[in-house]
Order: sequence, then C-alpha cells, then structure tokens
Amino acid sequence: MTDRLRHLTTLEGLDRTALVRLLDRAEAIRHDGAPRDLLAGRTVLNLFFEHSTRTRTSFELAAKRLGADVVNFDVALSSTNKGESLLDTLHTLEAMRLDALVVRHKENGTPELLARHATSAVAVVNAGDGQRAHPTQGLLDALTIRQQRPDFENLAVVICGDIRHSRVARSDVHALAALGVGEIRLCAPPALQPDPAEFPGCRIGEDFDTALRGADVAIMLRIQKERIVDAALPDDGAYFARYGLDARRLALARPGCLVMHPGPINRGIEIADAVADGPQSRILAQVANGVFVRMAVLAELLGR
Amino acid sequence: MTDRLRHLTTLEGLDRTALVRLLDRAEAIRHDGAPRDLLAGRTVLNLFFEHSTRTRTSFELAAKRLGADVVNFDVALSSTNKGESLLDTLHTLEAMRLDALVVRHKENGTPELLARHATSAVAVVNAGDGQRAHPTQGLLDALTIRQQRPDFENLAVVICGDIRHSRVARSDVHALAALGVGEIRLCAPPALQPDPAEFPGCRIGEDFDTALRGADVAIMLRIQKERIVDAALPDDGAYFARYGLDARRLALARPGCLVMHPGPINRGIEIADAVADGPQSRILAQVANGVFVRMAVLAELLGR
Amino acid sequence: MTDRLRHLTTLEGLDRTALVRLLDRAEAIRHDGAPRDLLAGRTVLNLFFEHSTRTRTSFELAAKRLGADVVNFDVALSSTNKGESLLDTLHTLEAMRLDALVVRHKENGTPELLARHATSAVAVVNAGDGQRAHPTQGLLDALTIRQQRPDFENLAVVICGDIRHSRVARSDVHALAALGVGEIRLCAPPALQPDPAEFPGCRIGEDFDTALRGADVAIMLRIQKERIVDAALPDDGAYFARYGLDARRLALARPGCLVMHPGPINRGIEIADAVADGPQSRILAQVANGVFVRMAVLAELLGR
Repeated sequence: MTDRLRHLTTLEGLDRTALVRLLDRAEAIRHDGAPRDLLAGRTVLNLFFEHSTRTRTSFELAAKRLGADVVNFDVALSSTNKGESLLDTLHTLEAMRLDALVVRHKENGTPELLARHATSAVAVVNAGDGQRAHPTQGLLDALTIRQQRPDFENLAVVICGDIRHSRVARSDVHALAALGVGEIRLCAPPALQPDPAEFPGCRIGEDFDTALRGADVAIMLRIQKERIVDAALPDDGAYFARYGLDARRLALARPGCLVMHPGPINRGIEIADAVADGPQSRILAQVANGVFVRMAVLAELLGR
Repeated sequence: MTDRLRHLTTLEGLDRTALVRLLDRAEAIRHDGAPRDLLAGRTVLNLFFEHSTRTRTSFELAAKRLGADVVNFDVALSSTNKGESLLDTLHTLEAMRLDALVVRHKENGTPELLARHATSAVAVVNAGDGQRAHPTQGLLDALTIRQQRPDFENLAVVICGDIRHSRVARSDVHALAALGVGEIRLCAPPALQPDPAEFPGCRIGEDFDTALRGADVAIMLRIQKERIVDAALPDDGAYFARYGLDARRLALARPGCLVMHPGPINRGIEIADAVADGPQSRILAQVANGVFVRMAVLAELLGR
Repeated sequence: MTDRLRHLTTLEGLDRTALVRLLDRAEAIRHDGAPRDLLAGRTVLNLFFEHSTRTRTSFELAAKRLGADVVNFDVALSSTNKGESLLDTLHTLEAMRLDALVVRHKENGTPELLARHATSAVAVVNAGDGQRAHPTQGLLDALTIRQQRPDFENLAVVICGDIRHSRVARSDVHALAALGVGEIRLCAPPALQPDPAEFPGCRIGEDFDTALRGADVAIMLRIQKERIVDAALPDDGAYFARYGLDARRLALARPGCLVMHPGPINRGIEIADAVADGPQSRILAQVANGVFVRMAVLAELLGR
C-alpha cells in the first residue's frame, strides 16, 4: 500500500500504484462526479508567479467543484514586489489557514522549496515550475492515453518539440515510464534536444518521420517562437516543414494514433488544422481530463 | 409559445413574448428573490476582452446569487496573448465544462461567432460587442421604463448622444420597438448620427430641444471624449451646451420624464448634476435592474 | 451598552467596551470557529484603490468563511479610470445591493466620505486609508498582545519606525490607549517623528535602545525604502544599525517581550532574521488573528 500523498510537486519517483490510484480517482470523478461538499470549509490558494489563465482556471474549477473556497493571490501585484521573500509569503499565507497552495513559478524547484518549509497543514501542488515539472499535466496526459490505449506495455509514444526546455515532456515521461509504456521516443531539433541522462530509456532523435513510424501516440509540444530563432531555424514555416504534424506525417504512425498537445496550440507551426481538429485529436479530451485530474489530486491531498 | 432561448447575443429579432417573459422574470426576482441554489453546480465564465468592471461585477453578482460557480477568465493575461485563436479559447473553455460564457469583445459579432461554434451545453451571453449589441442593457432599460410607464404604446423615448457608435442605443431600440413603444427619437450631432437604415421607424435629428419636447423618457448616452474631438466639436462645454441634459431642457419634456444613462456618467458633459441626482433620475434603478435582468437571463438560459 | 457599529472607518473614538466586544468575538471565532452560513446571501465587495494582496486576501477569506459572496472590484481597470467620481462608484455599487464595502485608498478620509454617503444598507470597512487609519490592523495587534499579555495597564509598548506616515501606528495607538495600555513609546528618526499633538499621552523619542528598555511589546513598522532616502539616512544598513531590531537590542527589553510587525517585513532593515523567526516573534500570529478580527468585524457589522 502506498502512503497517502502529502504534496504533489513532481511525478518523478512516484510509483505505479500511486499513479494508478490518482488516475482511477480522476476517472471515477469523470464518470460519477464528486460530492460538491467534499472540500467544504477548506481553502485552496492559487499562487501564480507566471501567468497561466488556462491552468489557473482548471485548478479553480476543480477546487470549486469540490466545494472549497478558492482565492487567487495575484503575485504580480503583491508584496513579493515589495521584496518579500518567497518563504515569508508562504508562512504569511499559511497563517491565514490554507489547506492547499497551488503554485506556478519560473524557477525550477520552487514547489519543493515551499513543500519543504510548509507546515503539516498545507499541501503544495505544483502547477508548473521552470523547465522541471508539471505533474498534473503528466497525469492528465497519462489518463487521456489510458482512456483509449490501456495496454501501456505495447505502446510507442512520441513526444515532439522543444524537449530540452519542456516541463511537460519531463512530467509526461515520468508518468508514462512508471506506468510501463513500452517505448518513449523524443524528437527535437538538435538545439532543442535534452541531455539524454535526464531521460533514461528514451530514444532521442531529430527526424520526425522516423520517430512517428508505428507510433500509437504523438504528443506535440508548444514551441516558443523565441526558441525557433534561438535554435537558428529560419522561420515558422521551416519548423512546420520539419516538425509540424500534418496529415501526411500522421499517416506514418499506426492507424488511430492519438494526437495530443498541452495547448495553447500554434496552428501551422506545431500542428496542421486538419490534424488538430481531426478525429484522432485528443486535445480537448486533455483539457477535460485536466479538471478531473486536478479534482482527484485535491481530493487525495485534502480529503479526510 | 416562444421556444426556450439558447443564447442571448442580441435583442434584434426577439419577439415581444420572449422579451416580456425575461422582463417578467426579472421583475419577479426583484420582488421575491430567487432560489440561492437554482444554478448550484453550474459554471458561469466571464470572458471579457474589453475591461468593464461594472458590467462584469453585475454578471458576477447575478450568477453567484443563483448559486453558480463563477470564474473570471482574464483575457488580458491569457493565452489569447500567445496567439491562441478565439475558437480554440472557446473549445478549451468548453472542455472544462461550462454552462454559460459571458463575453465582451470590441469586435462586432464575436458573441454570434462563439454561439455558432459552441456545443449545445454552453449558452453564450453577450455583455457588449463593438458597436453592435448590449442586450442585457436593452433589457434593463426596458424594465426600468416599464416599472414607471408600462403603457409603452403611448410613450415617446429620446436617446441622445453618440448613436452611431452605440451598442446601447441599438439594443435599446431593438427592445423598445419590439415592446411597442409609440415613438423613438434619436438625437445626435450630425457626425454621430447613424445610418437611418439601421434604425427603421425612428426619428433622427440633431436638435436636442426639439427631440425632448413632450418626451416621456430621455436616455443619455456616454460620450467618449475622443469622439468629441473627432466630431469636430470644440470642447466638453460646447457638447454640454448643445447635447447636455440640464434642468432647463428637462422642463421641455413631459412632466416626470424619466432620465436614464447606462453609466458611467460624465457629469457636466452629457448631464448636469441636478438632473443626474434629481427626482426624475432612474440611473441607479437601471444599475439595480441590471442585476435582476442578468439573473433572469442566466436562469432562463441555464435553468432546467 | 454600546450601540451596534454601523461602519468601521477608524478606531479613534471607539470606547473600550466596543473594542473589547470585537476582540472577544474574534477570540471566540479563533477557538470555536463561526457558522459557515452566518453571512449567506450577503455580499462583500473589496474596493482597493491601492494594491494590497495580503490585506485583500485576508478580508476575502474572512468573508468567504462566513458564507458571504465576495467580489473583488478591480479599480485599476475600472470606470474610475474613465473619470467616474468616487461617489458615483459608491452609489453604483450600492445599487447592485451590497452589504459591506471594504475600501483601501491612498487618500486620508476616503472611508469616512463613503460611509457618510452610503445608504443605511451598506457597512463601510476601512482597509487602510492614506496615513490615517487601518483599524483592523489596530484590532489584530491588540488581540495579539492580549493573547499573551492581558494585563494592559502594566504594559509598555514600543512602536518603532516611520511613525509620521504610518496608519498602522495611528490605529495601534487608538486601540491600545483605549484599552488602557500603561505606556506607549514611539521611536523614530527625527525626520519620521509625528506631530506630538496627534499622539497625546505617548512618549516620543529617537533612541531605540532607550525606548526598548523594559518594554513588553515591540511593534516594528515597515520602512518604505523611499523614506530612508528622504530622511537623509545613508542606506539600509545605517537604518538597521539605529532602528533595526536584533537580538542584542531585544535583550534590552523585558524578558519575553513580544515582537510584532504588520508585514511584509524587510529582513535586515527593520528586523534581524533571528528576531523575526525567533520564539518571541508574534508576526505570524498577527496574520492569523487578522482573519479572525476581520470575521468578527464583518459578523458584527452585518450579522442580524
């Protein structure tokens, strides 16, 4: 039996049992809903140092649908601008009696720092830190795949894009490897390939056609336009020509290959309209699962 | 019998029965309140591409007083800044399971675009688009008039100001014409007069004294100061001299003529203090009715 | 018997009975909680003209924990930017049917202005105005002291920092004097000392060591870095050397002297880490009491 989770800062190191329990709980919520008063009287505070209206909204809806009080603490306007340290902000918020702190920060490791210093009453949930982890994204991606391809051992999953700088890629790989996915392929231009030591067991390559052949799932990452320039790729069109997912390329994958993307999508850069909106796209299912996964995580961390 | 409304994007084309039903429902809420749990478990998302704290707050209060979960999606900080298309934003939000999307946008027709592409589960409510429509304002203005002057057939209503660019004027005229108001007069400086084809059956003129004579209701529009310059009027004082509503002018109207304004008012530009704060002013009643009308609209669109 | 409070704009003039009742109520809420539905159906609107995420969050949590609907009216983005007057904003918000208006403003006296013009249905709560008053801070500071040193008559309390510009100092002194604190000492650099007429009965000095000797409570104020320059003090280090609270200085006070600060703290400027985080620090207790005090105030003003 797995111990009850205290925080969710990364999927790295979580074992299969813990992951499956969270996915099962999310799936149960998707089917049956959850009690509207499960977290009545509890407080969830969103502490976003980077703006992400989508992820913040997903967490806000998840918490409200379990009956929690939700407060958005707008850091851009807050005392941290007045030079207050991160830990002083943490302890101040804790003193107001929080139950969960959902944090996004551009620095790697901020959620762990907060979790290490938090009192036992507060659960820290990572909503994305630097290039390191985005655990609820990893969970929702695993759930989305499981809904259609539960035989993880036999799957080949391709993740394509700026792997080097992607917290989504890292959390996806942590989840999928622990859940026993047969083969994980990472595809990126050389300048955006990661240190292989960070991704043990993954095949890393630069040719997208090769990577896609026989794949069951293609997870396309959002490319930051600045990166394209940094990576000395001539322009959007050239990136799309080599790393965009269009119908011709998708035909190289196994029939029914799932198409995924964490959003927001850059149409015509990472992905063609026909594929983003086509029958194999699971992009909106990912968004829907995002709320269920976050409800499951909050229920698991805060439920009595 | 009128079909149940699916969306509220404009009042244009709504028949008398549908309008009266909404007004009756708003009036009933004003008198008797509404069940605090009518929309329990439902989600209303405010998607404002233009800032309007007043209108957003009115919708937020309306939804909360019916027990809905309310999320303010701050577009200025959101993914739409990252180049996400409007329809991708719509479908992403829908995937999070919304019941109503309250939208304000500077482009004409955005609410229709969203309503056309929305799934059957989501009701779109227009909180103002471009110069085209502001249907809840039209409803609340009609309700405010009806509370004091229910005999619409016998009324002369003047709307004065920048008619050409006003979504308030358009929605007011759609509501009042469908409800059978006897006479609608539009008064504006020549540069701010609308295409008469857009306002069939309305009398359009530039002399405010003439327009006011015998009127039962005067609706003053907010003038954008930029417009005054555009319209080659020398300054605020000159605008007030010709189009401001002061006590002398109000005396030209019928005794007890109602004074209305969608707010926020420019005192000393469209309206004199003594009139804005005087016994004939219904400006604050409009604000109060705004919440009741929005409760009625949400209840009508979302109620089971 | 004291009359029921209508507004809370300042502690000045509140008698001991009224203060004790609020403190007792806050203490009872701390021990026993409060009914989650005490303010069900009531609306609390936060109207912050100055950003203060901490204070706003404390009020928001207080109101939500009593079951009120809470709306944050973001003034920076609102109609007041379009030139709407403060009183027109007040009356507009009132027309939406508010129960409490929590206001912060940089101008002295804004909450009184609003309270004077508010209808009888609306309670105004001052969340800080200019340099004048911050009554819930005064209450939470008094509560924090009372929890450890209830024998107010025998206490010596030092307040140190920019007294001249501090609304916290003013509200603290109003509360503590009315509650019978034996001795209140104000310590500041000459340029930041207040007019003694504003602080009758207080000892004012510039030597912090002298002020601390035998003190039971030391309330350190946040120094605005701009002020240090204005006050012609060379730099942060020099300020700390003369007015910072470190372990050596704290030893001059009575054993167990309480250390307080309204936050956010400037470590190494007003206060040393070892003192801020030490066993005598009540800084986080102040934050916790802040929520209880605000619950008590809202319950007192709005409770039926």
